[in-house]
Amino acid sequence: MEPIRLGMVGGGQGAFIGGVHRIAARLDGQYALVAGALSSDPARAAASAAELGLARSYDDYRQMAAREARRKDGIQAVAIVTPNHMHAGPAIEFLKRGIHVICDKPLTATMAEAKRLAKVAEASKALFILTHNYTGYPLIRQARAMIAAGDLGALRLVQVEYAQDWLTEAVASKQADWRTDPLRSGLGGALGDIGTHAWNLAAFVTGMEPEALAADLSSFVPGRALDDNAHVMLRYPGGAKGMLWASQVAPGNENGLRLRVYGAKGGLEWEQENPNRLWFTPFGEPKRLLTRNGAGALPEAQRVSRVPPGHPEGYLEGFANIYTEAARAIRAHEAGEALPEGVLFPGLSDGISGMRFVAACVQSAKRNAAWVAP
Amino acid sequence: MEPIRLGMVGGGQGAFIGGVHRIAARLDGQYALVAGALSSDPARAAASAAELGLARSYDDYRQMAAREARRKDGIQAVAIVTPNHMHAGPAIEFLKRGIHVICDKPLTATMAEAKRLAKVAEASKALFILTHNYTGYPLIRQARAMIAAGDLGALRLVQVEYAQDWLTEAVASKQADWRTDPLRSGLGGALGDIGTHAWNLAAFVTGMEPEALAADLSSFVPGRALDDNAHVMLRYPGGAKGMLWASQVAPGNENGLRLRVYGAKGGLEWEQENPNRLWFTPFGEPKRLLTRNGAGALPEAQRVSRVPPGHPEGYLEGFANIYTEAARAIRAHEAGEALPEGVLFPGLSDGISGMRFVAACVQSAKRNAAWVAP
Amino acid sequence: MEPIRLGMVGGGQGAFIGGVHRIAARLDGQYALVAGALSSDPARAAASAAELGLARSYDDYRQMAAREARRKDGIQAVAIVTPNHMHAGPAIEFLKRGIHVICDKPLTATMAEAKRLAKVAEASKALFILTHNYTGYPLIRQARAMIAAGDLGALRLVQVEYAQDWLTEAVASKQADWRTDPLRSGLGGALGDIGTHAWNLAAFVTGMEPEALAADLSSFVPGRALDDNAHVMLRYPGGAKGMLWASQVAPGNENGLRLRVYGAKGGLEWEQENPNRLWFTPFGEPKRLLTRNGAGALPEAQRVSRVPPGHPEGYLEGFANIYTEAARAIRAHEAGEALPEGVLFPGLSDGISGMRFVAACVQSAKRNAAWVAP
Amino acid sequence: MEPIRLGMVGGGQGAFIGGVHRIAARLDGQYALVAGALSSDPARAAASAAELGLARSYDDYRQMAAREARRKDGIQAVAIVTPNHMHAGPAIEFLKRGIHVICDKPLTATMAEAKRLAKVAEASKALFILTHNYTGYPLIRQARAMIAAGDLGALRLVQVEYAQDWLTEAVASKQADWRTDPLRSGLGGALGDIGTHAWNLAAFVTGMEPEALAADLSSFVPGRALDDNAHVMLRYPGGAKGMLWASQVAPGNENGLRLRVYGAKGGLEWEQENPNRLWFTPFGEPKRLLTRNGAGALPEAQRVSRVPPGHPEGYLEGFANIYTEAARAIRAHEAGEALPEGVLFPGLSDGISGMRFVAACVQSAKRNAAWVAP
Repeated sequence: MEPIRLGMVGGGQGAFIGGVHRIAARLDGQYALVAGALSSDPARAAASAAELGLARSYDDYRQMAAREARRKDGIQAVAIVTPNHMHAGPAIEFLKRGIHVICDKPLTATMAEAKRLAKVAEASKALFILTHNYTGYPLIRQARAMIAAGDLGALRLVQVEYAQDWLTEAVASKQADWRTDPLRSGLGGALGDIGTHAWNLAAFVTGMEPEALAADLSSFVPGRALDDNAHVMLRYPGGAKGMLWASQVAPGNENGLRLRVYGAKGGLEWEQENPNRLWFTPFGEPKRLLTRNGAGALPEAQRVSRVPPGHPEGYLEGFANIYTEAARAIRAHEAGEALPEGVLFPGLSDGISGMRFVAACVQSAKRNAAWVAP
Repeated sequence: MEPIRLGMVGGGQGAFIGGVHRIAARLDGQYALVAGALSSDPARAAASAAELGLARSYDDYRQMAAREARRKDGIQAVAIVTPNHMHAGPAIEFLKRGIHVICDKPLTATMAEAKRLAKVAEASKALFILTHNYTGYPLIRQARAMIAAGDLGALRLVQVEYAQDWLTEAVASKQADWRTDPLRSGLGGALGDIGTHAWNLAAFVTGMEPEALAADLSSFVPGRALDDNAHVMLRYPGGAKGMLWASQVAPGNENGLRLRVYGAKGGLEWEQENPNRLWFTPFGEPKRLLTRNGAGALPEAQRVSRVPPGHPEGYLEGFANIYTEAARAIRAHEAGEALPEGVLFPGLSDGISGMRFVAACVQSAKRNAAWVAP
Repeated sequence: MEPIRLGMVGGGQGAFIGGVHRIAARLDGQYALVAGALSSDPARAAASAAELGLARSYDDYRQMAAREARRKDGIQAVAIVTPNHMHAGPAIEFLKRGIHVICDKPLTATMAEAKRLAKVAEASKALFILTHNYTGYPLIRQARAMIAAGDLGALRLVQVEYAQDWLTEAVASKQADWRTDPLRSGLGGALGDIGTHAWNLAAFVTGMEPEALAADLSSFVPGRALDDNAHVMLRYPGGAKGMLWASQVAPGNENGLRLRVYGAKGGLEWEQENPNRLWFTPFGEPKRLLTRNGAGALPEAQRVSRVPPGHPEGYLEGFANIYTEAARAIRAHEAGEALPEGVLFPGLSDGISGMRFVAACVQSAKRNAAWVAP
Repeated sequence: MEPIRLGMVGGGQGAFIGGVHRIAARLDGQYALVAGALSSDPARAAASAAELGLARSYDDYRQMAAREARRKDGIQAVAIVTPNHMHAGPAIEFLKRGIHVICDKPLTATMAEAKRLAKVAEASKALFILTHNYTGYPLIRQARAMIAAGDLGALRLVQVEYAQDWLTEAVASKQADWRTDPLRSGLGGALGDIGTHAWNLAAFVTGMEPEALAADLSSFVPGRALDDNAHVMLRYPGGAKGMLWASQVAPGNENGLRLRVYGAKGGLEWEQENPNRLWFTPFGEPKRLLTRNGAGALPEAQRVSRVPPGHPEGYLEGFANIYTEAARAIRAHEAGEALPEGVLFPGLSDGISGMRFVAACVQSAKRNAAWVAP
């Protein structure tokens, strides 16, 4: 099975998430990275490409899209790992040319961009994959399958949070700068950067999205233009309720993404920092600790797991699962086949949902935490 | 040192919290339980008193208050451990007669009762103690002292929750019945029963109270008249924000009272189910796990701790600390001395604050989670 | 029900375990402490007694035994809380006079004393209770019951340890001095002080005792006369094996008593520092976390538990359970009745077993960790 | 930088560790797998190679060694992932031809093989790397560096264990069969399979090896020819002591590799199942929880870490670190340069040490757990 030829936009020297995408693409041997427009600075683009041993380096993504589309051995898919405001442009360019897009989240910086991108994506014969990577964790697949199977009964409560501390003080760094800049990040600070992950994870696991939210946003660090803390209450169709907390100013929290879901018959609890464990708490019975690939593991979780229980898989494996699911989808797509059963990856509608989440939170916050439909 | 002569109202056979109060009173040898009106049912009152070996048993608390006040060896203090709607009556009766009152929380079932009680308590020369018992945990004292000392810097975030699961389904039991009955419990269900604990704990530790809250209340179990889940957002004077979650329908949670506080310089995290540990997370330094009486223990925590670190103290010891603090206060009061330095116990203002919290949540919920000043 | 009249030998000002015994005796209201020979220093004995409000204070335990035995309202039981070398003397004195003895562990400082005491105890009509307090924890009762019921299948492995750190450096304190002094402590240092607890706990839970052990002892702190670390391998009749580790020089360990037992069908794991949780791991099934009084709690555990699950009970409650079991036994004994069903407390044979454990370890260590029968 | 051309011996369909090696080799993009003798069964070898898209497939490793050595584009390194008794043969063959060997542990099945291999390896100009993969975990590097820096003071205690449960019952599977067969596994069962990991990890972190050990071995499952449980006491030069426990019959343990080291000034505790955390317990100070790449991370740990703290790295990343360290060594070696500073990987001497450990345990066990020098 030939590896899928992959290109990359962004991810040059000094970037963070680009390196993660490259490992994720490589981990299961499904992709070969062959081309890139790794930086908007031509010198850095070239140096970065050389360092990575890329076959072809471009100065800008338009050029890359045009030329790769013409090559027989051109890229089949492109990973977009630029700051938020630089997602829509390249995504549209590649989709138009029938090249599959694997794009970092959130979808775009503005809703207008999102809509433009959506229109193109819907018209394109290529696939659009959004790397809401936490949906790749095996036990998140397990949780989703258990809830879908009714193991928790009718859902009542969704408590989700993503707490970090790295923006507790004002920081000047490539990573911090664009994330706290409305022009590059969009309407949301913590909201867009990590709140969208929490939002997406809750939706992925529970299979439902809130019909209304009420948000209170803060910017605790003086001079910060975007939110660094978001408190959100959620209302789901059918009466379930939720709370979402996203913060980048909570000292002691590194990547504290935590999800708790409770229904009439039981609960589930999961934490990203130790993702190989999932608490299942059927009401009136002892708590059970499910482990990745351990007793009680469902096929939905096993198919995205590589090693036996007790040998921890982590962030990169979860991320790689998104890439590998994308590879399965791309191969089926190119073979004219249906998506293989069980293959799951976040896409356009998840991205639009995340954009609506951010916009609704900002709107709600402006109206003193009034309820807003996302 | 003679034990303080204690009476009890409520706490007859089949009750829960009465037994806890009795152990708490006994644990440090500061009290002798000598009289009681243990039940509104005279036969049960008598049987309960006999079982406990009480010197004097009464059919009703009015009679008890009148007679004990006249005896030379009459009770000096009374513990009130009845359902919420039966707090104000006896409390007023004993306070009027100069007998100290140790009352279970919440203060009363209605704000009107609370105001009446407050008036009497302020006029009385006797003390009024409210058993917000979680403030008795040594590491809660430690957390309060650390925050007061500025170890966390300016506070920004208060995340507090109290999650249980015992009302996940409709239950018929003495304990469940009155707690879900507006006539006996008051305006709040989970709000009054455990939400007030979360509210009080956050205030005790942080030294601040919200100026506004927005609450979304649910009654998930069909036919339940009061809330069994409360989602609340908090705004503090000066800009700090918070979230409070109280639930009795979260399967897998037994008594999940958890407090997390974050400031500009660091954070603290504590869980009631394992109360001998306190995480201190100074920003930019390794996380530190403080243990009760272990390295780094402050005098404020050590003075309410009995055994060395690693030998767990629990719920009853924390509860006993409230009783023993009350005993110190009573002895000082009766000797005409000032309250000894460091002695801390929840009282009338905490009770009023809890009542305002419940009322504000209910009012906010009726107004679609509008912001309300508690 | 009248409280049992209790005396105390040792436990004067500056002592540690005496205070623990007093709280334990008081917690369930089963005892009234009325007399004591609290110190071998008459002035301190008197001052200590006055501080505690004891009705009768004695200068020495012989006098106390003689006089109390003659009084109509004399003590029914005595708690012996002196250093190890001062256990046998008073125990014998009180047992001879028909006064029940509740004695701290280990049984005595020397095997010769143990044998003398055993002879007297067997001849006495009074009861002898040894406070191996960890057997009082509800989930330890649960573990014992589960193993007895065969939930683990045939036992194969017993991994037990008790790690502390307080003797990591040379310390001069009342508590450290006698524990590191062979004349007062006996043959064992860490072995006697905490190793006996580990030994006893394993035996209590598994229902079996090793037939051979091989021990390697160390005294890491220069000048220390007794072991501060013990490594022991265990062989049980029938082929099960074990490891026991006792250390007082393991920094970061406060009272790290941990027991893990594995059989052909499953395992159990428990830690004293968080004693309200018990892992049950049936082979091939998800791990289950049992909680004190939670789902799956057996009657054997519930009968020694006071509060609902999630409200932690701790060291003092476990200790109190031994006192309360003793009270049940004493009351039955005095009423001429059989021991009520389910009542369990450590006694003479446990004490003798502990003495044999220490002696066997010392003997094995001298013979280069040869196998020795305890 | 060109990827290193890698071959593989073993690891065909149905194997476990071969797949792990392939991911580990791929993760950092340092290797390209181009050739293999994946199975001793030619049909399976071919099918496996086709599935993996290998350029060249061989029926046996001798042929492969001979032919690859002659090719200009022949493999530079070979991964040997066969059962233990099939390590020495291929390793010798490739080393003789100057092809670097990356070999799974333990070194060989017998000491005789080990000696033959050692002789060849010492004579070869090629490198020999043994995949004691747990030494690749960043926080294990941190622990080693802290101990070397004296953060724990003089070492006193090493408590190491590796507990699994998958052989609790008799199992028939490719994985279980050879591991319980003396002909293919060698002298040790659990000893060789996981005991050597524990032994190696303790040595790697502490920088010291025991001078004597006393071992008690068991085979709990009827009919099992090799040990499934090993209890071992350790004595180090200079007086430190240790305990090692290896078990494959401890229900509830998946891959419970745990290391605790204590010195005169502090302790360290680490668990493989959650490898992104390391407890550091300086005596007399609060416990500190170090996280991978978090505050307090040393350069030795950071250089083998890929993502920020809170994003867990796992087993595969640790394994990949060994491969990537090997790649650095191979590149330096081929360039005629010295090993780059900081590069660390297990090699021949670690392998010999592990063989001596197994042999000494078996010998000790035969002599009733007498002390034996490994």
